[in-house]
Amino acid sequence: MRVAILGTGLIGTSIGLAARGWLDAEVAGHDPDPSALVAAAGRGAVEPAGSLEGAAAAADLAFVCAPVAAIPGAAAAALEAGARVVTDAGSVKAGIVAAVEELAGGGAGRFMGGHPMTGSERSGPAGAAAGLIDGAAWALTPTDRTDPAALASVEDAVRRMGAVPVTLSPDRHDRLVGLVSHLPQVASTALMSTVASSADETAPLLAAGGLRDLTRLAASSPELWVDILLANREAVAEAIEGYGDRLRSLAAMLQAGDAEGLTEAFARAKDARLGLAARPQSRVGLAILTVPIPDRPGSLAEITGALAHRSVNIEDLEIVHSAEGARGTAHVTVGEADAEAAVQALTSSGHEAARLA
Amino acid sequence: MRVAILGTGLIGTSIGLAARGWLDAEVAGHDPDPSALVAAAGRGAVEPAGSLEGAAAAADLAFVCAPVAAIPGAAAAALEAGARVVTDAGSVKAGIVAAVEELAGGGAGRFMGGHPMTGSERSGPAGAAAGLIDGAAWALTPTDRTDPAALASVEDAVRRMGAVPVTLSPDRHDRLVGLVSHLPQVASTALMSTVASSADETAPLLAAGGLRDLTRLAASSPELWVDILLANREAVAEAIEGYGDRLRSLAAMLQAGDAEGLTEAFARAKDARLGLAARPQSRVGLAILTVPIPDRPGSLAEITGALAHRSVNIEDLEIVHSAEGARGTAHVTVGEADAEAAVQALTSSGHEAARLA
Repeated sequence: MRVAILGTGLIGTSIGLAARGWLDAEVAGHDPDPSALVAAAGRGAVEPAGSLEGAAAAADLAFVCAPVAAIPGAAAAALEAGARVVTDAGSVKAGIVAAVEELAGGGAGRFMGGHPMTGSERSGPAGAAAGLIDGAAWALTPTDRTDPAALASVEDAVRRMGAVPVTLSPDRHDRLVGLVSHLPQVASTALMSTVASSADETAPLLAAGGLRDLTRLAASSPELWVDILLANREAVAEAIEGYGDRLRSLAAMLQAGDAEGLTEAFARAKDARLGLAARPQSRVGLAILTVPIPDRPGSLAEITGALAHRSVNIEDLEIVHSAEGARGTAHVTVGEADAEAAVQALTSSGHEAARLA
Repeated sequence: MRVAILGTGLIGTSIGLAARGWLDAEVAGHDPDPSALVAAAGRGAVEPAGSLEGAAAAADLAFVCAPVAAIPGAAAAALEAGARVVTDAGSVKAGIVAAVEELAGGGAGRFMGGHPMTGSERSGPAGAAAGLIDGAAWALTPTDRTDPAALASVEDAVRRMGAVPVTLSPDRHDRLVGLVSHLPQVASTALMSTVASSADETAPLLAAGGLRDLTRLAASSPELWVDILLANREAVAEAIEGYGDRLRSLAAMLQAGDAEGLTEAFARAKDARLGLAARPQSRVGLAILTVPIPDRPGSLAEITGALAHRSVNIEDLEIVHSAEGARGTAHVTVGEADAEAAVQALTSSGHEAARLA
């Protein structure tokens, strides 16, 4: 199998590494930035090609991993150059898919919009890893013009690289990521701004874990996020409006002293939160253990060490701060099959451990 | 010194333990619920008294740790019974302080509103610990009627129990906790409701770390929070309104395609977030290290173990998920004095570790 990587940044280089490792593919790469291409080749992710067309011409599957604005042109060029199937990695889909279908004319059936839901705090080829693909959800957004064979081909490659294909329409993709990914970013930034502009110098002394949890995303890269949000502006604006309505409804119940209505709304939200699994694609098969953390050096090492000793993989670990104050309890997410062994390991090392409902 | 604990739940019992340990005090306790009183006595936190008045009569300092609605009556009764100074642990202050001053008449000068900013996921005397007090911020809210000697006496006791007194007016206290504690809870609950009601069954597959961070608080106890929010309803409603304004302003910039305005707003929020320390009362002297976590059993144990081996205390550990995807980087907060040793320990155990700006 021959794969082309068009755009060798963090995601493109990661896909190149995964394609070499798990698709056993010959991988040709191109990037308009020569230093990115050299770095990706240095990581062993691609054989560098002199042009986009050179990389794409003989490809069974081309991945366009360019910035959102550059995707339609690059995808159309790859189709024109002869790539059998072309997909992309843009984080919004409706606009890109429509633009590619318009530019590609008769070749549009061979384009399949895609969005690997992965990333890293690091950027560029240096931050790339095949592991970023393994286990990630990967949205695929066919339209009625998409050739079913193109969908099947991308789906197969995605699955063999260890990711989990999720097929949905471009509009539904954009609406959903607007809600579950873009709205949380806006909510976090707006909260941090509100607190920063209204609070005085005493406020940080009184702030506890809750504020920190909710404003963590506000420390993300402004440039990266503004690009993403602008590319999905209608869906995000709609999500913000829905969120604003919900806030106003809670405020109205509060001002009316409606304890019953508030309790019901809070209880429904609590139920919904408990239904969110640690790894999105693993909706079954995970268990969350609560473990109080003694405040002394080495206590987290004891907890994680006790689990490592039994080869229990920690899927996730959150230090949950109480509503007020900085003391913590660890919420340790492990596979369902490991849960009993994990509780035993923790208990016999002198920790309290219990399964969360 | 003689201390009275009026209300022996989680906070009252913890204060009793701290008063015995660090104030070397005789501690008398009372609770209208006999089983809570027996449990607190069983923890060694109090000598049980037959009545509130019996516990309060000879006290140099009485802590009223009752539910918000019961505080004014209990505080007035303790003053009447002869306690030299009375303080409370209610999480809102203006209404309580005004009610006590009205009920207590001439004794009002001996009452000092208070709010230890601490808590636990566990509840009742069984969850109590002197450690919940040690290091916590403790708000004190004198008015112009408060006797300066009462303030000095509570401040001294709080400090000797290891907490950090923060003195401010009742109104300012309520406005600030409305912003930094109550608003985040409402924002989290509203976000979870918005996503739950608007999203379809595919949404959880696409949800990543950001949504989980922002909705963690939504899993809190509805009953507890509705009581707190209703007791501070004006300040919370005002905070929600400010938050709504901020969201509308971001949405307007988004719809206008104002990349520059958005980038500026996001950059300001990012700066504000980077200024929030892990432990609110330790605004200086902490360092945050970023450490990528390999996805295999034992990797967190290696990281925490390497630090434990050098006796570096982990002040906080967050697993920061990238904006999309579930892979993580640990943000490990350590004391500034330990930072260099921590980086060396991690590096020499084969991990990448760098200080966050």
